[in-house]
Amino acid sequence: MESRTEISSLGEFGLIDHLTKNIEIKNASTILGVGDDAAVIDHFGKQTVLTTDLLIENIHFDLVYTPLLHLGYKSVIANLSDIYAMNATPAQLLVSLGFSNRFSLEALDEFYEGVYAACEKYSVDIVGGDTSSSQKGFIISITAIGEVSPDKFVQRSTARKGDLLCCSGDLGAAYLGLIFLEREKKIFLENPNIKPDLEGEKYVIGRMLKPEASKRTIDFFEKEEIMPTSMIDISDGLSSEILHICKQSNVGCLLYEEKIPIADETRNAAYKFELDPTACALSGGEDYELLFTIRPEDYDKLVLNENISVIGYMTDPEEGKKILTKGGNKFDITAQGWNAFNK
Amino acid sequence: MESRTEISSLGEFGLIDHLTKNIEIKNASTILGVGDDAAVIDHFGKQTVLTTDLLIENIHFDLVYTPLLHLGYKSVIANLSDIYAMNATPAQLLVSLGFSNRFSLEALDEFYEGVYAACEKYSVDIVGGDTSSSQKGFIISITAIGEVSPDKFVQRSTARKGDLLCCSGDLGAAYLGLIFLEREKKIFLENPNIKPDLEGEKYVIGRMLKPEASKRTIDFFEKEEIMPTSMIDISDGLSSEILHICKQSNVGCLLYEEKIPIADETRNAAYKFELDPTACALSGGEDYELLFTIRPEDYDKLVLNENISVIGYMTDPEEGKKILTKGGNKFDITAQGWNAFNK
Repeated sequence: MESRTEISSLGEFGLIDHLTKNIEIKNASTILGVGDDAAVIDHFGKQTVLTTDLLIENIHFDLVYTPLLHLGYKSVIANLSDIYAMNATPAQLLVSLGFSNRFSLEALDEFYEGVYAACEKYSVDIVGGDTSSSQKGFIISITAIGEVSPDKFVQRSTARKGDLLCCSGDLGAAYLGLIFLEREKKIFLENPNIKPDLEGEKYVIGRMLKPEASKRTIDFFEKEEIMPTSMIDISDGLSSEILHICKQSNVGCLLYEEKIPIADETRNAAYKFELDPTACALSGGEDYELLFTIRPEDYDKLVLNENISVIGYMTDPEEGKKILTKGGNKFDITAQGWNAFNK
Repeated sequence: MESRTEISSLGEFGLIDHLTKNIEIKNASTILGVGDDAAVIDHFGKQTVLTTDLLIENIHFDLVYTPLLHLGYKSVIANLSDIYAMNATPAQLLVSLGFSNRFSLEALDEFYEGVYAACEKYSVDIVGGDTSSSQKGFIISITAIGEVSPDKFVQRSTARKGDLLCCSGDLGAAYLGLIFLEREKKIFLENPNIKPDLEGEKYVIGRMLKPEASKRTIDFFEKEEIMPTSMIDISDGLSSEILHICKQSNVGCLLYEEKIPIADETRNAAYKFELDPTACALSGGEDYELLFTIRPEDYDKLVLNENISVIGYMTDPEEGKKILTKGGNKFDITAQGWNAFNK
């Protein structure tokens, strides 16, 4: 039998000691970490970039099919993705958790193992946080701090007419991973003896449970000296993010359906569920890829990068936000992005 | 009848626009605020100080007797207090909220009105956050960002033998405010027709519902060029905070019971409930005053400040952490601070 340590046996300060005792500082900018009223950081002439996410059980994640290890990893990734979307480098993290007494110390350790794995991979220091009991469920609040040279950060509001619209990686996979896991959960609840059949869907499930932030795209920009004219991370679905850039930059766009990058595994999974792969890419969330615009003259610099797709271009605002389908029809792009309030 | 606007009628982005549309930036260090993947700040040669708090309904606050306006204000104060405890100046805030559909837009507006009032008073900019639905209850996660000149921040771990132990303001009031409000809640639940009788307890209830952060103490240090040798904010009760400083600084201390500052209103309230005022100051939380140590030679600088009390001095660690009572007895100081996990 697995051992179970009640968290109340440690007390709040004992718990914090336990969860943070293995922290090793990786960034020179981390002057003072966990263990005081606040952390102190010094970005040595760089500007500080800040983002935060609140994740709530059964709204943002389902522990029936999400291992705590993966949840810890993914919670960090979601925040790092926002830092990369500013063309910045993440450096520090504040991690706050609320949890009911249904969670044991071993469960928290598993969650933190995932948090630490992501911090290790992306060279980020945990410098603070808060722990609390909750009456029900698991609550995660993470704040990520990054650094960027002044005038190097990229906003959503600075795309211009004629810029090329690009994205990293491939889209829609995480959404299909979710669809699969939801189906298997339903089958399991109806008949707990049936073993889940997820073997053929490793790719989409992996994208759902263990996403990565698109550090390689930011590294590529630096290497090739590309300065995107605008950027946003793709967490709510491609269409929602395109509309953000268009609205905040006051431009229109033309998106080519055939250019949207979708992995073969994602297409096959979509067909199994009788879903349109393009619709999954447009409206499915949690891809954590980057959507950005570049000046047309930078096209040569990225044409050979297989990780980046040019998917359209920006137009006058009067031309609207349009998608040109494979069949040759033009439609308005509408926001069907993931919206927690409509659930 | 009060109007009630369902939050779902706005959608997530409409809600964020609504809640943030009146933000006016007050700090030169705020380069980019709400409306992008992350905020950008530049502390111009200063170091960045970071703290975060997670507050959960029915664990940290009870909406039966806590108006949302006050809750918003207090949530900010709790974080600013941590920044001041580093001898730093708060400048930015990230505010994340989770709430069930029992909350209307008008309720959120009331909460934000309190948040904005605190930001106005302490000259702090809201630069980001997150909103989410929750299945149940109200969840608040706030991250505060401050600035401090390098080598000016004050830690918990740097008190030395012979230093004087001091605190700002008076202690125990917020705890007695809580006791009163809990009693009135019980009476109200037993008989909703009885009007609450809180008139005589305005002071302690005010300290509970609308605390302030001890900015005046930090301003005083700057004016008088006092550099505390260690500091912590008093959020969990005096004894718990003293033990933190002793443990992290590896020193002992002698605390004089008669020197602990307790307001007359607090004493009277304690007697009504047959509680020991000293015990309320030692173990009651949420005072948001500052506990700090200074070199003995700085004593002259603060002796005339009525807001500051010298309550003891630091000793060799072998001498333990002791309180000398009015009756002349010495006891060990024990942590009976507020611990959410024991509730």
